[in-house]
Amino acid sequence: MADRKADLYNMKLPDDLKKLNYEQCDDLCRQIRTLLIKTVSKNGGHLASNLGTVELTVALHRVFDSPKDKIVWDVGHQAYTHKILTGRLDRFDTLRKEGGISGFCRPDESVHDAFISGHSSNSISAALGIAYANKLKGDEHHAIAVLGDGAMTGGMSFEGLNNAGKSETNMIVVLNYNEMSISRNVGSMAKYLSQMRTTSSYKKTKTAVERVLDVTPVVGRPVKKVVRSSKNAFKNMLLHSTLFEELGFEFIGPLDGHNIEELEAGLKAAKALHKPVFVHVNTVKGKGYGPAEANPGEFHGVGSFEISTGNPDVVSPDSYSSVMGKELCRLARADKRICAVTAAMKYGTGLQYFAKSFPERFFDVGIAEEHAVTFCGGLASEGMIPVFAVYSSFLQRSYDQLIHDLAIGGLHAVICVDRAGIVGSDGETHQGIFDISFLTTIPGVTIYSPSGYEELRVCLKKAVLKDKGIAVVRYPRGRDVSSNMLDSSSGAFVCRENGSKTLIMTYGRLYDNVRKAADTLSEKDIICDTIKLVKVYPFTAELLDTVRGYDKVFFFEEAYSEGSLSQKLAAECGNVYTFCINGFVTHGETDSLLDKLGLSAEKIAATVEEKLKDET
Amino acid sequence: MADRKADLYNMKLPDDLKKLNYEQCDDLCRQIRTLLIKTVSKNGGHLASNLGTVELTVALHRVFDSPKDKIVWDVGHQAYTHKILTGRLDRFDTLRKEGGISGFCRPDESVHDAFISGHSSNSISAALGIAYANKLKGDEHHAIAVLGDGAMTGGMSFEGLNNAGKSETNMIVVLNYNEMSISRNVGSMAKYLSQMRTTSSYKKTKTAVERVLDVTPVVGRPVKKVVRSSKNAFKNMLLHSTLFEELGFEFIGPLDGHNIEELEAGLKAAKALHKPVFVHVNTVKGKGYGPAEANPGEFHGVGSFEISTGNPDVVSPDSYSSVMGKELCRLARADKRICAVTAAMKYGTGLQYFAKSFPERFFDVGIAEEHAVTFCGGLASEGMIPVFAVYSSFLQRSYDQLIHDLAIGGLHAVICVDRAGIVGSDGETHQGIFDISFLTTIPGVTIYSPSGYEELRVCLKKAVLKDKGIAVVRYPRGRDVSSNMLDSSSGAFVCRENGSKTLIMTYGRLYDNVRKAADTLSEKDIICDTIKLVKVYPFTAELLDTVRGYDKVFFFEEAYSEGSLSQKLAAECGNVYTFCINGFVTHGETDSLLDKLGLSAEKIAATVEEKLKDET
Repeated sequence: MADRKADLYNMKLPDDLKKLNYEQCDDLCRQIRTLLIKTVSKNGGHLASNLGTVELTVALHRVFDSPKDKIVWDVGHQAYTHKILTGRLDRFDTLRKEGGISGFCRPDESVHDAFISGHSSNSISAALGIAYANKLKGDEHHAIAVLGDGAMTGGMSFEGLNNAGKSETNMIVVLNYNEMSISRNVGSMAKYLSQMRTTSSYKKTKTAVERVLDVTPVVGRPVKKVVRSSKNAFKNMLLHSTLFEELGFEFIGPLDGHNIEELEAGLKAAKALHKPVFVHVNTVKGKGYGPAEANPGEFHGVGSFEISTGNPDVVSPDSYSSVMGKELCRLARADKRICAVTAAMKYGTGLQYFAKSFPERFFDVGIAEEHAVTFCGGLASEGMIPVFAVYSSFLQRSYDQLIHDLAIGGLHAVICVDRAGIVGSDGETHQGIFDISFLTTIPGVTIYSPSGYEELRVCLKKAVLKDKGIAVVRYPRGRDVSSNMLDSSSGAFVCRENGSKTLIMTYGRLYDNVRKAADTLSEKDIICDTIKLVKVYPFTAELLDTVRGYDKVFFFEEAYSEGSLSQKLAAECGNVYTFCINGFVTHGETDSLLDKLGLSAEKIAATVEEKLKDET
Repeated sequence: MADRKADLYNMKLPDDLKKLNYEQCDDLCRQIRTLLIKTVSKNGGHLASNLGTVELTVALHRVFDSPKDKIVWDVGHQAYTHKILTGRLDRFDTLRKEGGISGFCRPDESVHDAFISGHSSNSISAALGIAYANKLKGDEHHAIAVLGDGAMTGGMSFEGLNNAGKSETNMIVVLNYNEMSISRNVGSMAKYLSQMRTTSSYKKTKTAVERVLDVTPVVGRPVKKVVRSSKNAFKNMLLHSTLFEELGFEFIGPLDGHNIEELEAGLKAAKALHKPVFVHVNTVKGKGYGPAEANPGEFHGVGSFEISTGNPDVVSPDSYSSVMGKELCRLARADKRICAVTAAMKYGTGLQYFAKSFPERFFDVGIAEEHAVTFCGGLASEGMIPVFAVYSSFLQRSYDQLIHDLAIGGLHAVICVDRAGIVGSDGETHQGIFDISFLTTIPGVTIYSPSGYEELRVCLKKAVLKDKGIAVVRYPRGRDVSSNMLDSSSGAFVCRENGSKTLIMTYGRLYDNVRKAADTLSEKDIICDTIKLVKVYPFTAELLDTVRGYDKVFFFEEAYSEGSLSQKLAAECGNVYTFCINGFVTHGETDSLLDKLGLSAEKIAATVEEKLKDET
């Protein structure tokens, strides 16, 4: 097919990739970019990061043989091109849709997705496990971890590098360096990598890499010649890179991440070395799409948008995150002890307001949730009031630090748990359904779950200024869409009493569904009282008394069943039926997922009605 | 006091330390060493690591002003001298004894213990929090993290370094390099640090450090002169240390960790820089005590021993750990897929047998529990059967990885949870009381809790060869001291039926107490059936049926109450009374602690008797 134009839609992928010449490759990359922009503009998703890795992905699949060679994508939000090239082109329009393909890598979706992705910094560890398994089985294929510079700020990446460098396996780490992770990258590692991108401290003249380059062909020619003649000179490719070399890796780079010929030369050299190699690739986030190149931060994770301008279709004027961020500023203005901490999610958690108003009290620690919590412990031990805003599923990383560095010492810190509950299209690695279960295993924790903006403000103020120990405020992704919520500016819970002996209870945004369900039931003359918990844990004596006063209690909960609040209440009071989430939840629309989980207003009403009927 | 001998027992500590000349310092260090050996030989504890840090601790307290300057000891098992010098000399004979001083650092024990210690690699993060708090308060005092090379293999240390280097705070990291952590140190970082100990790649002639040295006095003389004339030449002190310098630190070292004059010179220089400084100190583990210097691994954590020979008083011929280690070897001989993973606890977890028999399938990943689990995921994804043996409290570090990198993908890995339940004298950071709670929040987990060696063997075999997903086998510290245990080589539980409508149930080693309690009660004509769970989670339908057949069920559990198995069973069946552990548990003798927690045979019998009396 050397004389034809590449046609993404009429190729046998990924095999045909290797038959293309470089001109055809570039042509293919243009087609892929068009598809990426079209799809993400409709379905939402990660755009800038995926536009940056088009050539890298094509080069990886030309040099390596997936799925025999295993490519492990860190986080996964740069793997759309990989999906397109490995059997998911025809379903790519279903990206992130319920029943469609996932926005992250999932081994159950494709044999080419070598390992699960979603949470940052796990790729080196997973790839090393694969590499050792190959070695034990006598399989010479490679394991390749591909990660961004953001993922390099996570301690797990370092743990992986520390073990991989000396491993004597066919293990390659590809650093996709694009100068920014989700928020602007932080820390010394970022500075170090940034220097590496631009400077060449000395040239190595005869290294193991170079010897290999002399004999490794790229489409017939020795790699070294290709690289010498390419835009980045050979001296750049063999940059001095003490840090990674000192960790035991051969180092190759920096490579121009948008030049397929150069990428292939570097990757072929890495492959030929048959030992741990660190490959540094420079890419441009948003490459090829003006609005995204100009504003990669805004195009990191987006909803649908208008292609010609790049404007998002729906701009949420407000969200739980921004209400939290603004209220925290209000509190911080009056109290100089308040500090804010984020793990590379300044915008996602609404802390950009705080960062702007109080830069000296704002700390973006990188994708380092473990450090974040212990750092809060250090601040708290000196009388500051640290507030760590973090997504529910990412807080899982900090479980030990919450116990060891905060709870044992009784230190006061506030954890704002964002994206609590079902998050929708990001899927099972991102659903915030475990925080209730794991946070309640920590002695002394207080948990609030406000069901609207005003409650969030009240709870945050209590957590920051009134509570002791670890105080958690958890709230869902997105906007407050509740209506007619019960007022609950004081107490731990509010009860809507209709004189019934049947109670339906819940907390957080789910109360809106419970209230609607109760209204539906009352139209059928099934009268129920309802309770909305606000300070959801620990239970107050008053709550237990109230619950015990009912014949039957139905507790619906947007949380995993084991360790749930309803399970705890059922253990205390014999009359509680629990309705929770019983396993992992894949991607889809939040409302639709809640319905499937039996947590929509309709399903709640139906469940209660049926249960009452069964027992009469 | 310049003309007198130093007398540890007649000084005002730590203030008088600064009045000593170097000869008196050395004399004091000898007295401290004698006390350390005497006390640890009686009480058990960490000997080799503490003998290595005597001079370093004296130098730290001479250069800095604790508690205004905050010294954060990582792990804490090198902080005995610190305890002796900061107000705990008179109570040092109570070390690790119930009601006595802790073997680790605890802020509630002394204002000189700046932060909690116990779990590795948290010191840099905590010290950085303290340093920033100082900066915000305009306080010029220092925060000093002291950590060993073992702690440097934990990703949290890297996350801390990555944030500290650029912090513009008065933050010092002291690396106590003694060439080995608990097991032999692993990974590229160990190799790198080892090179740093011995080689000097080039000499810096005029650095910021050197300029400071010219003007900083040590007992009157400029530091530089002192250092020049000391054993380690100046060129060694200003070693090229790319890695830490590239992370943003000024670097000082390597310093001779047993030469107080040189240590002081280096620490004074670090203090005078008023910016993040990394100080590399070489120490000898077990320094000054022949048997410990010769065999630091054996003297890492020890029971009581005979001083003259160094022989431990009690050599446990067998333990749950070694039974697991030997059985795993037996299984691995027949099945080449089985791999063993440890996070720097080869001896502690009994994996030394496996390491010797199957070195190519044995992986010591350093103190890197996060990486360990994801690495297991990589191995499992390629069809291997990884077995990660780890202490219960350290597995807390892996919570997210268990969910994300094993459970979501349904990968099969075995977690051998050692030190489950009360561990005794190591205290609250080490009690294994949360694993039941947090492991049961992970969908698809199977948990075994054998109550003796034979059951451990049976459970391990099932977990490795029969179960799918995450299979956990948990067992306590130390030896099997049970008597007359029920046989349970098959099923999920065994029931001792006496025809009673009252049931007492538990699992693991606690069954021995429950059985004894039932015997005591039967002597009072209170007849109870007993159940011992073996596969403790998830509950089988048969168990639920059996439990529901009783009028009253008393469930005693050596685990934290929230998320406990008894809580789950109570939620399922209305007739269950739960008796668990309700908070953190400090150090003491295991049997005594269990008694205080209401879990001794006597307390169990008394509780059941009283409860039955109340209700009749």
